Amino acid sequence: MPELRQDSLNGDWVIFAPERSSRPDHLDRPKPEETDPAHCPFCPGHEHLTPPALLTWNANGDDPAAGDWSIRVFPNLYPALRVEGTVDPRPDGFYDRMNGVGAHEVVVLTPEHRARPADLSPGQWRRVLNAFQARIRDLRGDIRLKHIQIFINHGYRGGATQPHAHAQLLALPVVPPQVKRRARRLREHFETRGRCLICDIRAVEAEEGSRIFLDASRVTGFVPYAAVSPFAMWLVPHAHLARFEDADNAALDGMAAALHDALGRMDRLLDRPDFQLAVHGAPFHGDGAAWRHWFVEILPILSGTGGFEHATGCRINTVLPEEAAAALAKA
Amino acid sequence: MPELRQDSLNGDWVIFAPERSSRPDHLDRPKPEETDPAHCPFCPGHEHLTPPALLTWNANGDDPAAGDWSIRVFPNLYPALRVEGTVDPRPDGFYDRMNGVGAHEVVVLTPEHRARPADLSPGQWRRVLNAFQARIRDLRGDIRLKHIQIFINHGYRGGATQPHAHAQLLALPVVPPQVKRRARRLREHFETRGRCLICDIRAVEAEEGSRIFLDASRVTGFVPYAAVSPFAMWLVPHAHLARFEDADNAALDGMAAALHDALGRMDRLLDRPDFQLAVHGAPFHGDGAAWRHWFVEILPILSGTGGFEHATGCRINTVLPEEAAAALAKA
Repeated sequence: MPELRQDSLNGDWVIFAPERSSRPDHLDRPKPEETDPAHCPFCPGHEHLTPPALLTWNANGDDPAAGDWSIRVFPNLYPALRVEGTVDPRPDGFYDRMNGVGAHEVVVLTPEHRARPADLSPGQWRRVLNAFQARIRDLRGDIRLKHIQIFINHGYRGGATQPHAHAQLLALPVVPPQVKRRARRLREHFETRGRCLICDIRAVEAEEGSRIFLDASRVTGFVPYAAVSPFAMWLVPHAHLARFEDADNAALDGMAAALHDALGRMDRLLDRPDFQLAVHGAPFHGDGAAWRHWFVEILPILSGTGGFEHATGCRINTVLPEEAAAALAKA
Repeated sequence: MPELRQDSLNGDWVIFAPERSSRPDHLDRPKPEETDPAHCPFCPGHEHLTPPALLTWNANGDDPAAGDWSIRVFPNLYPALRVEGTVDPRPDGFYDRMNGVGAHEVVVLTPEHRARPADLSPGQWRRVLNAFQARIRDLRGDIRLKHIQIFINHGYRGGATQPHAHAQLLALPVVPPQVKRRARRLREHFETRGRCLICDIRAVEAEEGSRIFLDASRVTGFVPYAAVSPFAMWLVPHAHLARFEDADNAALDGMAAALHDALGRMDRLLDRPDFQLAVHGAPFHGDGAAWRHWFVEILPILSGTGGFEHATGCRINTVLPEEAAAALAKA
């Protein structure tokens, strides 16, 4: 059974998932060789290699005939958290722990083994975003869960185990530390100025212009002022809304088109790099409708982080956001 | 000129160091091939390939004849921060920035090109710790600087550019976010319980025993209760002291012996892994003598982190601390 333990020194919860040590690549993850669809558990026809599906849609968003799917969601075979049982938070002598209750799901983005996420059409991205929403809506009724994180690890340096394009979803029994830290700043901004910080940032970027690479009618794409790494990208929907899962058709269409555009620019400019992507939303409970604002972050993984970043939490970026944005805008 | 920009969303300062983009490995750091001492800028006889030394000691701790050094410290050729100029914090429109003033130094730990840090004797480690102290004492008088981080990146996955064993030192014009977060918890523990949290943790670990791999007279080595990654190690000096640079001979002797022991266990158990090491001390200014406590953290880098960890700040560890400690104790 996975468990969560609290780091006494900074208050963060660490997930202990010993079951994941049965992954083939555990502790010495080999660089994926030339990918072989014949053994890919995420390819059509190999559904028996994964747990049973939680959601299967064809290109029309309907339940497809076997094997004829466009998007497929199933529980992770090596889950970091498990859906069974109670959270049972309790002292462990001097320390604090709870059971590793939660959900860990895989969303296969396309049946095409060799497609990159940038190869998905806006229409396919729209279905992927709908599938994310459907899974969140299914999980958010579970009172044991506090927050859900949707993310993509693509490529070896992005942290992927499987080369076939997929997203993951982790639902947690705690609100994670970065989400809490962002909430503090967002709430403080709203309380002192009466405005959403993300709306303000988008307005400032639109006015300033030098960090924008995508200026569409529903979503703005820019390299943030204090980008944590080279060519980091934010895709911010214009419509103020706290939770991604509540986004309407217009907002999803805008984000689907922006994802297609931004990932294509990244692939052309940086020659198809490994990357990470996160959908930043809001925890399931508590307030924040006025001061939270969902957005998507894309991080090309071009060089790793070292001991300095781990020890201090301070990042070093070698490319100025204005230069990164100019190159992305041209790509 | 490097600069610091504040991330509006979480308050963290990001270092922008465009000069570092002239590093040979920038953005696509190749895996170091079989290392060739003939071209190593950190090897004796190649001192002209680096900036002039700030400190050079031979095995007796004296200033050596040219080339006959045991430890050599010099400014990083590709510094993330620069010593010239004023910090000049100021608004940048809606945002906040300051100049990238600071120090970025390299400490070559041994003249031997192929030595791993675990190969250093306790005596050599003692001289390395003395050299760290000497550099901190030299820099802490600079009122522009707020905090210093000493760290080792070893091997490709550890974040190293050069294979020759070395540490780095970064002195910053801000107190970094992780240091602030730890300080909040340490201060709160002292204010509510009247004791140092690190002293408490060491006492709890000594009593409990299951996470200890090194039980020496001056330093205890254990895998922390909520270890952020497999086989993470803490080396905690028994003598309560906030700042590493104020440690006396006895404490340094104890830590030197513990470093030799712990790195040897790590190399034997995990087959000489890439790793990161950090000396966690205290910022230059402010209080904390009663509630801060310096220690050393060692992190073998066995698998990378993914988009989930970046997005949430929540870590996933696949090896329980008790199992890691038992294996290290036997190694």
